[in-house]
Amino acid sequence: MSIHPILRIDLDAVIYNYKLLVRACPDSVVSAVVKDDAYGCNAQVIAKTLYEQANCRSFFVAYASEGVSIRSFVPNADIYVLQGFDAEESHAYTSGNLTPVIACPEQLKMWNDLKPNDLRPAIQVETGLNRLGFSLPQITELSEKERLKFGLVLSHLACADESDSPFNPSQLLRFNNLKHLFPNARFSLAASDGCALGSAYHFDVVRAGAFLYGIHTFPSLKKEQKNVISVSAPLVLFKKLTQSDYVGYGADFHAKDGTKIAVASIGYGDGLFRSFSPKGCVWFQTDHGWIFAPVAGRVSMDNLIIDVTLIPESVLKTAKEVFLLCDKQTVDDLGAVCQTIGYEIASAFGHGTRYRRVYSLKGCCLSAEDILGS
Amino acid sequence: MSIHPILRIDLDAVIYNYKLLVRACPDSVVSAVVKDDAYGCNAQVIAKTLYEQANCRSFFVAYASEGVSIRSFVPNADIYVLQGFDAEESHAYTSGNLTPVIACPEQLKMWNDLKPNDLRPAIQVETGLNRLGFSLPQITELSEKERLKFGLVLSHLACADESDSPFNPSQLLRFNNLKHLFPNARFSLAASDGCALGSAYHFDVVRAGAFLYGIHTFPSLKKEQKNVISVSAPLVLFKKLTQSDYVGYGADFHAKDGTKIAVASIGYGDGLFRSFSPKGCVWFQTDHGWIFAPVAGRVSMDNLIIDVTLIPESVLKTAKEVFLLCDKQTVDDLGAVCQTIGYEIASAFGHGTRYRRVYSLKGCCLSAEDILGS
Repeated sequence: MSIHPILRIDLDAVIYNYKLLVRACPDSVVSAVVKDDAYGCNAQVIAKTLYEQANCRSFFVAYASEGVSIRSFVPNADIYVLQGFDAEESHAYTSGNLTPVIACPEQLKMWNDLKPNDLRPAIQVETGLNRLGFSLPQITELSEKERLKFGLVLSHLACADESDSPFNPSQLLRFNNLKHLFPNARFSLAASDGCALGSAYHFDVVRAGAFLYGIHTFPSLKKEQKNVISVSAPLVLFKKLTQSDYVGYGADFHAKDGTKIAVASIGYGDGLFRSFSPKGCVWFQTDHGWIFAPVAGRVSMDNLIIDVTLIPESVLKTAKEVFLLCDKQTVDDLGAVCQTIGYEIASAFGHGTRYRRVYSLKGCCLSAEDILGS
Repeated sequence: MSIHPILRIDLDAVIYNYKLLVRACPDSVVSAVVKDDAYGCNAQVIAKTLYEQANCRSFFVAYASEGVSIRSFVPNADIYVLQGFDAEESHAYTSGNLTPVIACPEQLKMWNDLKPNDLRPAIQVETGLNRLGFSLPQITELSEKERLKFGLVLSHLACADESDSPFNPSQLLRFNNLKHLFPNARFSLAASDGCALGSAYHFDVVRAGAFLYGIHTFPSLKKEQKNVISVSAPLVLFKKLTQSDYVGYGADFHAKDGTKIAVASIGYGDGLFRSFSPKGCVWFQTDHGWIFAPVAGRVSMDNLIIDVTLIPESVLKTAKEVFLLCDKQTVDDLGAVCQTIGYEIASAFGHGTRYRRVYSLKGCCLSAEDILGS
């Protein structure tokens, strides 16, 4: 048993979740958002898999460099760059044949000046999030000829995770009001959570990120959606303590006579938030189902200590690893424990550099190299 | 101006901080802890720099793979592997000439069985942290011959950041009580914060990690210690809002008439914790000094929105970037805002994959490739 923690990505589940959204948005192109290394799941692997196994032909990244890194795996797909056009990366738009989502008039001017490729750029428009995007006055200042250049008009919802928020119909109205200004462009408003707001929000293109990776954004599909990310940590050693013992930094955890602990190889250096302690639990997988055990003391950089006193000896005897993420504890569940959201949990684990990474596809366990080829 | 955020590592400051500790621990070897990619600062760059510029000859990593990755840059140094011996990585101990810090009797048996190199292994002993390490009964069960094999005896303090904690003298006592059992080994108890507890805690080897990277662990050296990590984010656009506007996800931030915001290219996908909001601030560097502005609304994956209403127009006109980490806001300060510690802040930013990384050495701005060569 290796000392390294393991990050498992279930690619069959990603494909399954993608197809769920295709069925839920039957009149829209379902594009895949693979920014931030596909929320930590490996952008190249996810892009290639969805391209080849699910016929996905439209991808969104945040930065041009992310687009270039997936281009060879999705040769005939559109790749949109959400942060907009960066003059310093003009060459990437040429070599990667990338489409910028122009975020402001300054970016548009740079794009027109440099003309890195012949694609019709996309434009981001402001409807209420107040992040990236042209304001209504900035849009109406564009000439009609300029507006007709854009192939896609995109905006982003602020409160799509609250289905009854008045912000949703208000942003929808503003977005619809722009349609006549871009008569020959496609429109895109919904990300994963927007898909659940109904077909009025779907327009031509929906941008599926979180949902693909198992984050719950679609209440009526929650039972069908599959978990994608699993994280396990090997158990290095076990100890039996007495009431004179304390555990971890700050001696936060006070043992009792008979307390048993296990030390696992994972820590905040692997993206497990320190806020996992003191309320977090890990899961043991056994022949008779799952059983959980609470964390003991603070998360350290490389280790996590677990109170295994209530885990039966028969389980401990053969236990080699514990699960931080699994079907019993998804990124959303861990987000709730760590006072954040599943998106940040996925991203933080995904950035870890010390994992053994395993991808399952058609029931096989593969490495990234197996999938991407040489 | 590029759209990418920038992570700057001041190598001159790392060298300076290292030398401060050398002076503070005059009778000990000051080793450098470069696990977790040197707390996000780049283990290869840090190891090479300290080896060549500060004559550091002893390094600690968590995993054997981390040791192998630095070996060629520190050819004549000791490299200790803190997680202990992993039979599956036996080859790494051979090729990297690594010294395991054996954490439990099972690991010792594997080491003896496989004998990957001729180095004297280190042993970790339990003195109260209850994490990795041999218990006293496990130590006394070892034969004298077995004990004489170890070249270094190591333990770790639980409460070294609290100088008046009774745990410190208690762990010190237990550690000293082991000296007669390992008469020909060197001893190491203190990490960065332990160095501040006085010479009784220094023993033969101190393990300097956090302090090197600018994390405050040594109260009497706080003023002298230099900041190492800076993070800045480019400003993509500015907007003027009215009281009908809201900002960001959940529409958490309600604008007033005249509110001005700026959108920066950095988010939790770059390791900026979501818990930075709602209390966080960013810093503008101007010809007349530093000025700060508060975050507006939630941190998103790729962007941060800032309330710049109180920033003078003369500053905004030329402002290209804001600082998340700088001399005015260190990793410790940001840790306090995000309800964690500087260690986790450094590690999280350091894992980001979308930064331009700049290293300053002898006043020059260099890339990792410049420093490491080809």
